[in-house]
Amino acid sequence: MLPTLLRTARYPVRAARSLTRSTARALSVPVRNPLHASWTDEDKTFFQQLLKPENVLTAADDTEAYTVDWLKKYRAKGSHQMVLKPKNTSHVAAILKYCNDRNLPVVPQGGNTGLVGGSVPVFDEIVLSMSSMNNVIAFDDVSGILTCEAGCILENLDNYAATFGYMMPLDLGAKGTCQIGGNVATNAGGLRLLRYGSLHGTVLGIEAVLADGTVYDGLSTMRKDNTGYDLKQLFIGSEGTLGVVTKVSILMPPRSLCKNVTLLACTDFEACQKAFVEAKKKLGEVLSAVEFMDRQSLDMVLSQQDWTKDPLETPSPFYVLIETSGSNSDHDMEKLEAYLEDVMGSGVVVDGTVAQDEAQAQKLFMLREDISMSLSSRGYVYKYDISLPMDQYYQIVEEVREKMAPLGAEVVGFGHMGDCNLHLNISTLDYDEKVFSALEPYVFEWTSKYRGSISSEHGIGTHKPSYLHLSKSNSSINLMKRMKSMMDPKGILNPYKVLPVSEKNGAVLL
Amino acid sequence: MLPTLLRTARYPVRAARSLTRSTARALSVPVRNPLHASWTDEDKTFFQQLLKPENVLTAADDTEAYTVDWLKKYRAKGSHQMVLKPKNTSHVAAILKYCNDRNLPVVPQGGNTGLVGGSVPVFDEIVLSMSSMNNVIAFDDVSGILTCEAGCILENLDNYAATFGYMMPLDLGAKGTCQIGGNVATNAGGLRLLRYGSLHGTVLGIEAVLADGTVYDGLSTMRKDNTGYDLKQLFIGSEGTLGVVTKVSILMPPRSLCKNVTLLACTDFEACQKAFVEAKKKLGEVLSAVEFMDRQSLDMVLSQQDWTKDPLETPSPFYVLIETSGSNSDHDMEKLEAYLEDVMGSGVVVDGTVAQDEAQAQKLFMLREDISMSLSSRGYVYKYDISLPMDQYYQIVEEVREKMAPLGAEVVGFGHMGDCNLHLNISTLDYDEKVFSALEPYVFEWTSKYRGSISSEHGIGTHKPSYLHLSKSNSSINLMKRMKSMMDPKGILNPYKVLPVSEKNGAVLL
Repeated sequence: MLPTLLRTARYPVRAARSLTRSTARALSVPVRNPLHASWTDEDKTFFQQLLKPENVLTAADDTEAYTVDWLKKYRAKGSHQMVLKPKNTSHVAAILKYCNDRNLPVVPQGGNTGLVGGSVPVFDEIVLSMSSMNNVIAFDDVSGILTCEAGCILENLDNYAATFGYMMPLDLGAKGTCQIGGNVATNAGGLRLLRYGSLHGTVLGIEAVLADGTVYDGLSTMRKDNTGYDLKQLFIGSEGTLGVVTKVSILMPPRSLCKNVTLLACTDFEACQKAFVEAKKKLGEVLSAVEFMDRQSLDMVLSQQDWTKDPLETPSPFYVLIETSGSNSDHDMEKLEAYLEDVMGSGVVVDGTVAQDEAQAQKLFMLREDISMSLSSRGYVYKYDISLPMDQYYQIVEEVREKMAPLGAEVVGFGHMGDCNLHLNISTLDYDEKVFSALEPYVFEWTSKYRGSISSEHGIGTHKPSYLHLSKSNSSINLMKRMKSMMDPKGILNPYKVLPVSEKNGAVLL
Repeated sequence: MLPTLLRTARYPVRAARSLTRSTARALSVPVRNPLHASWTDEDKTFFQQLLKPENVLTAADDTEAYTVDWLKKYRAKGSHQMVLKPKNTSHVAAILKYCNDRNLPVVPQGGNTGLVGGSVPVFDEIVLSMSSMNNVIAFDDVSGILTCEAGCILENLDNYAATFGYMMPLDLGAKGTCQIGGNVATNAGGLRLLRYGSLHGTVLGIEAVLADGTVYDGLSTMRKDNTGYDLKQLFIGSEGTLGVVTKVSILMPPRSLCKNVTLLACTDFEACQKAFVEAKKKLGEVLSAVEFMDRQSLDMVLSQQDWTKDPLETPSPFYVLIETSGSNSDHDMEKLEAYLEDVMGSGVVVDGTVAQDEAQAQKLFMLREDISMSLSSRGYVYKYDISLPMDQYYQIVEEVREKMAPLGAEVVGFGHMGDCNLHLNISTLDYDEKVFSALEPYVFEWTSKYRGSISSEHGIGTHKPSYLHLSKSNSSINLMKRMKSMMDPKGILNPYKVLPVSEKNGAVLL
């Protein structure tokens, strides 16, 4: 009963539909690690025997989807590509043992929906696609604990959970394609983090294969397990550089029975902060999302999406989108009304609308969710996913906008305000080196000055290893490097990602 | 304004008041690591110069409170004891650098309220008491993020948070004495875990000093920070064996405005499970604790505590204690009433009482909280803090009770049922070797058979290193040892704790 439900096809990523322009920017690529081998026909034969020939892809047409990211921004160099599709943990273990012995580098890949180039090869690293490991292993409907293989698609798991009255504790735009193993490996955030916390708290157990093929069995299904070091945490957010996640157990919250969505307008950012603080107080336990967008973000959506219209009569410079979810719709609505009375009465909020049904709620939320897609439709996007203290959260948008004005670039600020997570996006019709140079490292350095995070939820991938020091102390980076050297001494796992690499030989800088 | 509030004296631990009998059991003590030095007068002089003489304790009267645990079960061997009281991170760094160079072993200590002997020396390890590092460093009342030193007492932090409408995400019986650094180092669980999750999710940043005196600065105050390996997680639950936690930043939820408590009686354990599942559905977001106790636990309290009386008219074999907390008392009470109607109407619950005010609520909760103290009052207690799948949660109590019957030992089962965490406690008037031998390793092996956890929230300490393999796979333990060797190659940090040590030379078994 359990497994079949999850064996569905890959969903298309929503945001990819309208990606009309390929990107022109030449990414700075590190030098290939000379200690790494390239796969040979002999290696291919070994993998074909292990996995059956149909699960070893080498033809360009077959490997294309695995060797470029969905934004078409990161593409493996060269045509010597291989994709392996293991069906179980033993396959993964055998592959990694073989690759480690042979010095063959490997890129673990889930749904390939990342935004920082973490899931595609830089050169000819072998792609280890987890898509065929997509079985639910167990579900306990008393505790709400699910155990499954890494390749299960997030939305499928959420639908499965729904049949038992539970839900996945995370929700992303890419849910129809992204896989739970990739979510865990990249510590995916998303919309539900405000309410249910990060994967560091909700993931209870992990099975992972280490670089040398050893299977690390940390697949606890206990909510509380204080027996020694919590090593599974190492695999959450390390982007496949310390091990390949093969199985996951995760705690699911009960599914909410009702939802409300309200879009509120504010005249300044300080009022947005007040609206947020009041929401925490007045909406308390039913508050499930506090999203933010500036007028420029909304204008971007209105200009790019046919179905949209201005949701409020008068334009305002700032919008806060609040979602409640709970178990009693009357109670939730009463709380929401009390909240609205308070923030509108005090002038914190100057205008607003409450969705009257599910369809309206979805429409309001899509105004926020479609910002990213609208930016992609318009042209080239320079995306920055940062965390900042509340005092600086919008200040950076204003400063960047001022800096971009002479260059003709549009600047929008939106994000998961409830988690201090800002998506600062800059839009030009085509890629512009001058714009890029004005943004990097400026944005990262600015963020660093206020002890923010240069990657709030997207990770480091190949985009930001050289900026890692702006968010992590030297002592942190040193310890990361020691960890990497200990767990993957040959550097075969997802090379050139996360940690700064040497420009000379592509190995982790020690 | 910030610091002074927190500079209060140590609170007495409530449960320690009635501890009338000292324990007789001879704990199996490992051999002292021959590579470790013993501190000399010269070392003492160094520390006195660094910290001032009054912060270096060596007289037996002064060190006593630091070298025995509060249950008087674990006591340092010998009288050659030293306690250091650093005032800041530089002190801790200087101490560890010195100790590492000199091969002097160190025991980091918070409030010394642990239950597995993790916070006192086994031989003459130097105690590093964090009590003097008790300042709040920063608090952001928009995000609810608090940054403080490790020695802050949990209850003080909670009171401090209350003034801003926030609360600490954890609550323990020992809150008046335990320190946040110790909570983090031991991954303390407690009553609020069901609602707010574990410290792996709520702790945002950690500063820790490594064995060689290096300061690891991972003191992020961002809720979302996906920049490389989340190494702070290593210090959460490693019981001071990988580093000494000196500062912590933590996310606080808004303080609940109202609470309800109800005690429900069930005739079998299956009904308790149903009551729990229904509570998750009907009480949803206001559910904040689901505690369990069997009749034997309640009888233990009734027989040992003068103030108590049977809370319900007819005795029942099982009780579930449910707490709601939320932001609107009418809503919460309505939800609770609907829930009670449901579970009592269907016969899942056969009797029950709802607290009418705060005092009654506290009394009901104390029936559950005082089980531990009542057991200690009666005589000797064999304490097992385990996690089990729901199907086995009470089965072990029944099996152990049958096994203990001929030996005249009382067996009680209670715990944080909502987290699958069972406290299986066995009581005899005096320590009885036969009882002990019948319990260990039996209880741990039984737990292991069902992939439970042999330490749900108390940790491993000196009590359970030799049983670690029953909850952790060989691959996990191997990786833990490699981690320990990498981060503390001389084994000076909290030796003989957590990891299995060699019987020959007291070093970690590699």
